[in-house]
Amino acid sequence: MDATNVIRFPHPPSVTCFAGIAGEKETAGPLGRWFDALADAGEDAPSWEAAERRLQEQVLTLALEKGGLRAEALDCLLAGDLTAQCTVSAGAARTAGVPFLGVYGACSTMAESLLLAAVLTASGACGRAAAVTSSHFSTAERQFRMPLTYGGQRAPTAQWTCTAAGAAVVSAAGTAPRIVGGLIGRVVDLGVTDAADMGAAMAPAAADTITRYLHATATRPTDYDAIVTGDLGLVGTPLLHDLAARDGILLEGIHQDCGAMMFDPAQDAHAGGSGCGCCASVLCAYYLPRLADGRLRRILFAATGALLSAASSQQGETIPGICHLIELEGGHHAD
Amino acid sequence: MDATNVIRFPHPPSVTCFAGIAGEKETAGPLGRWFDALADAGEDAPSWEAAERRLQEQVLTLALEKGGLRAEALDCLLAGDLTAQCTVSAGAARTAGVPFLGVYGACSTMAESLLLAAVLTASGACGRAAAVTSSHFSTAERQFRMPLTYGGQRAPTAQWTCTAAGAAVVSAAGTAPRIVGGLIGRVVDLGVTDAADMGAAMAPAAADTITRYLHATATRPTDYDAIVTGDLGLVGTPLLHDLAARDGILLEGIHQDCGAMMFDPAQDAHAGGSGCGCCASVLCAYYLPRLADGRLRRILFAATGALLSAASSQQGETIPGICHLIELEGGHHAD
Repeated sequence: MDATNVIRFPHPPSVTCFAGIAGEKETAGPLGRWFDALADAGEDAPSWEAAERRLQEQVLTLALEKGGLRAEALDCLLAGDLTAQCTVSAGAARTAGVPFLGVYGACSTMAESLLLAAVLTASGACGRAAAVTSSHFSTAERQFRMPLTYGGQRAPTAQWTCTAAGAAVVSAAGTAPRIVGGLIGRVVDLGVTDAADMGAAMAPAAADTITRYLHATATRPTDYDAIVTGDLGLVGTPLLHDLAARDGILLEGIHQDCGAMMFDPAQDAHAGGSGCGCCASVLCAYYLPRLADGRLRRILFAATGALLSAASSQQGETIPGICHLIELEGGHHAD
Repeated sequence: MDATNVIRFPHPPSVTCFAGIAGEKETAGPLGRWFDALADAGEDAPSWEAAERRLQEQVLTLALEKGGLRAEALDCLLAGDLTAQCTVSAGAARTAGVPFLGVYGACSTMAESLLLAAVLTASGACGRAAAVTSSHFSTAERQFRMPLTYGGQRAPTAQWTCTAAGAAVVSAAGTAPRIVGGLIGRVVDLGVTDAADMGAAMAPAAADTITRYLHATATRPTDYDAIVTGDLGLVGTPLLHDLAARDGILLEGIHQDCGAMMFDPAQDAHAGGSGCGCCASVLCAYYLPRLADGRLRRILFAATGALLSAASSQQGETIPGICHLIELEGGHHAD
């Protein structure tokens, strides 16, 4: 800890196993081949929330299997999701049966929970901690926007809540990828009130966190193989670039956004993907494997969240944004 | 960390300043004289959620003032509340302007956030971390149960969501009270579906966490000045005693429940107080001062949460319970 609030781990904890899953629409997109499995979208589940719970159960089971672990090996499960009171995560934690810390950072949840998992394991408070999150198109759209059957027309700025989930297990010791540091985000709110324009609401928070981290660590974007944001989408991405440029930081060419990467324009997902599961699944299925084998050596994962609710939107409140960041270090590429 | 998941701090962090506030009805109860201030119930606020946000702002300001600190002295604010997507906490964190980690443990939130604050500070990840939570009768009742104006009759098992809030700042070094250890709760669900009987839903989780902690630390209830639960109320309290007794642990005489303590029977609050702010305000206004001056030497604070939502209740889901625990050590009494 220093005056800039940056967290550094003298002995960086390892992300020892991980998995990312996504639904049919997401799997039909440009990243489809990288997901570990097709997410069970739960068409036969008693509710969409029960369906989303299955996503978390499926992805955690898969991550543990890949690491040769049983759930009992976890000292802590950190999870959160977009449903009110995070009931999806609570239900999945009930299934896992391990100590559970509920976290809520909207679509920044994966970065928040991984940062906390890193602190918990690096400090010795926990031996192994898992970070899990999910989103489901049908729970999120009904809750935040329109009943699905209403058939409302989507705004061009609207993002598509992904049916997807990610899970990663963090341990004090192990091989790359490792979490070498991070930064807890501040709430930034520039007054956006349109729940169909989350990219604009979140871009200022991403700019705040990324520029603070770069300044505090005296690094430049080109020091990283990628600076990855969660779910700014096609509207929020240029806003982030503009805001960072005002601070003298050029992100073009280094910056990649999970929401913008998730869909092909032909898929009619408008401004791109969103939802806690979007950047969580992309991190776990696309970036972490590339860090593990050394194709990537050093990235920033900066996940953004829009801290609104249906009630706050109806009450005309502005949308607070937040962005939590972790720095990940890869292994050595086996040339 | 050991196989029992108990967390111990070799250098216990200090709870350096704290405040608890409560509304008029709560202040009229047996604990009224101990609260630091009357909570601004926000009758003139534009919404009940905006009113509850003021509670968090008021209580954090008060705690910081008592410690001679400004908000900028905080490296992290951990907060959560009962409103969907924790918008109250996000709004208060926006006001504070400091790095913010959203947590969600329903009425267990104060124990969860204090345990995380202790890990963050003890490990050096943060210098100072604040834990804040709140509840407001009018936001919670409308969201989880009935519109207030409906005037529905309350069940005898129902608890009264307190209008109250608590804030505590944790630092790596400082005087008593200190957080010497803790235990992250597991989700326990024995199948209760009645959202008007939260005590029954949460008692099994309290029993699970408290008995696990006592076994793991080889301590007995009489080793503590008090074992304090959050908000089991008058229905959940005897259930906890019964469940613990089956495990050979006698809690009567040592156990105290914030929900049961909050109101006088004449106040018509049925099974007692509840809400994140109930045990948070009682901890910060009643217990922490007694630990600070040595009137109490060693207590367990085990806050319970019912992880339901309006949607999960309507869908007939059972109510998962959770209980997070911290052990607090007091100073030496100045005789």
